[in-house]
Amino acid sequence: MANIFTGLSAFPLTPLTDDVVDEQSFVGLVESVVAAGVDSITALGSTGSYAYLTADERARVARLAVDHAGEVPVIVGVGALRTSQVLANVDSAQEAGAAGVLLAPVTYQPLTHDDVFELFRTVSEYTDLPIVVYDNPGTTHFHFSNELYARLAELPGVASIKIPGVPGDAEAARRHVAAIRAVVPEHVTIGVSGDASAANGLNAGCQAWYSVIAGTLPSPAVEITRAARQGRASDAVAASDRLAPLWDLFVEFGGSLRVMAAIAEERGLAPRGCLPLPIQPLDDDQRARISVVVDALGLDD
Amino acid sequence: MANIFTGLSAFPLTPLTDDVVDEQSFVGLVESVVAAGVDSITALGSTGSYAYLTADERARVARLAVDHAGEVPVIVGVGALRTSQVLANVDSAQEAGAAGVLLAPVTYQPLTHDDVFELFRTVSEYTDLPIVVYDNPGTTHFHFSNELYARLAELPGVASIKIPGVPGDAEAARRHVAAIRAVVPEHVTIGVSGDASAANGLNAGCQAWYSVIAGTLPSPAVEITRAARQGRASDAVAASDRLAPLWDLFVEFGGSLRVMAAIAEERGLAPRGCLPLPIQPLDDDQRARISVVVDALGLDD
Repeated sequence: MANIFTGLSAFPLTPLTDDVVDEQSFVGLVESVVAAGVDSITALGSTGSYAYLTADERARVARLAVDHAGEVPVIVGVGALRTSQVLANVDSAQEAGAAGVLLAPVTYQPLTHDDVFELFRTVSEYTDLPIVVYDNPGTTHFHFSNELYARLAELPGVASIKIPGVPGDAEAARRHVAAIRAVVPEHVTIGVSGDASAANGLNAGCQAWYSVIAGTLPSPAVEITRAARQGRASDAVAASDRLAPLWDLFVEFGGSLRVMAAIAEERGLAPRGCLPLPIQPLDDDQRARISVVVDALGLDD
Repeated sequence: MANIFTGLSAFPLTPLTDDVVDEQSFVGLVESVVAAGVDSITALGSTGSYAYLTADERARVARLAVDHAGEVPVIVGVGALRTSQVLANVDSAQEAGAAGVLLAPVTYQPLTHDDVFELFRTVSEYTDLPIVVYDNPGTTHFHFSNELYARLAELPGVASIKIPGVPGDAEAARRHVAAIRAVVPEHVTIGVSGDASAANGLNAGCQAWYSVIAGTLPSPAVEITRAARQGRASDAVAASDRLAPLWDLFVEFGGSLRVMAAIAEERGLAPRGCLPLPIQPLDDDQRARISVVVDALGLDD
């Protein structure tokens, strides 16, 4: 059986309607990424608004994801500000039947490297579920070092590290990934996020892509991942380059989340205004520009 | 009656014992700052670990603060990641008898200025309680502009703006505060935080000091505030300068929170390890250095 922390992991949105989880939309997103052939689903990632949801909402979403993912393994985001809240989320992920947990060092007060190590050590001792170390400085404002990656990778539960986007230059990306690989044992996979650099990251040796777009637009993500994993590096880059107008919108509109929510809403996969307030939806002009891009990319198939 | 958003507001810790709020310690801190003559108490500020506590814990802490503050007005921190959670906290603050609420734009996903304006507008329409706009970029990573201050200050509920530390140079501090004052109507007070620059901020025209140290060491904060508010600018600066070894420890040990927790623990005002995990307590060497500083400052009286 393949290591579940390799290949393409799709991060579905957790759409809300009137501040309540829209379970039907969420199930629809899960079923559609399963049908598209993703390798795993990560429910309650940043794209799944985990940080905004209550413990009960998260338990329910984890359950829905597992129940509708069929044979596709489900990783569940368990991050929270307080260690005891993380452990409660681990419990509900385990009860739901998760295949692993994704854990970011969520911060309000800045955390030290020792704080973060102790958090992961505590979770690693608490559960037998494999752990994905989630390095997302854009949301957590915590900055990992390769030395901390190495310390964490020694913990028995740690199975994968989700790194931020890699450098745009292919050779620089290879050096970047190789430097992490050099300090992390073989059994711990390295997965890239930052969708715009995913092809580059996979070509540079990342074994997984933890993907925002795959949660809503799985087909092009499957294509990029297959090409890279089959050694067709230039095909992967070409497939990614075709999505450049989408990557540009991520930059222009302040990140991938609002753009992907707008796309899901536009395509009827989520109700209008599906993100938790205070995150405002994009406006009509922005949505019109997104529609033009998505239509031109032929992503409606 | 004086505007309650002027003078010295003390931010007590919310000590935990084994991950449960230590109500006796919290009440002790509230009673001791009341006895020291602070002008208001802000419960559940950053120092009070609001972001880490559940809605129920926050409701209980708000109630305890009001019940033990006597005639001293209590402001309650209501910030949360999700607008609906903020409103729930406003409800519990109101039920507790709070005199006002403190609201920071807590982030996981980065927020736009429009997101933050709409958050404050929503809260302003929801409650009659006066609102303190809480600008704390070190924890929220959200950056206000003077233009946003001005927009928020037009909202009917907004009564005060808690700004970060001001420049160290007195004249630069005056220009800094004057620039904010110029765009904010008179009825909205400006309060300084960043304890090391509080004397400078008060001398520069801030009407309030939202103070971390006053939650645990109120006497020197009362002295600084009185001097500044009575126009004895150089006395205020001198009193602040005497605390320079403490300000240095804040910088060296990554902020005021862990230092103040260690001081409270050392003085028997809070149980050992009173901060929510994953925030680790300072180690024994660090505590020894803090004790030397506190003893030398004669703050044990």
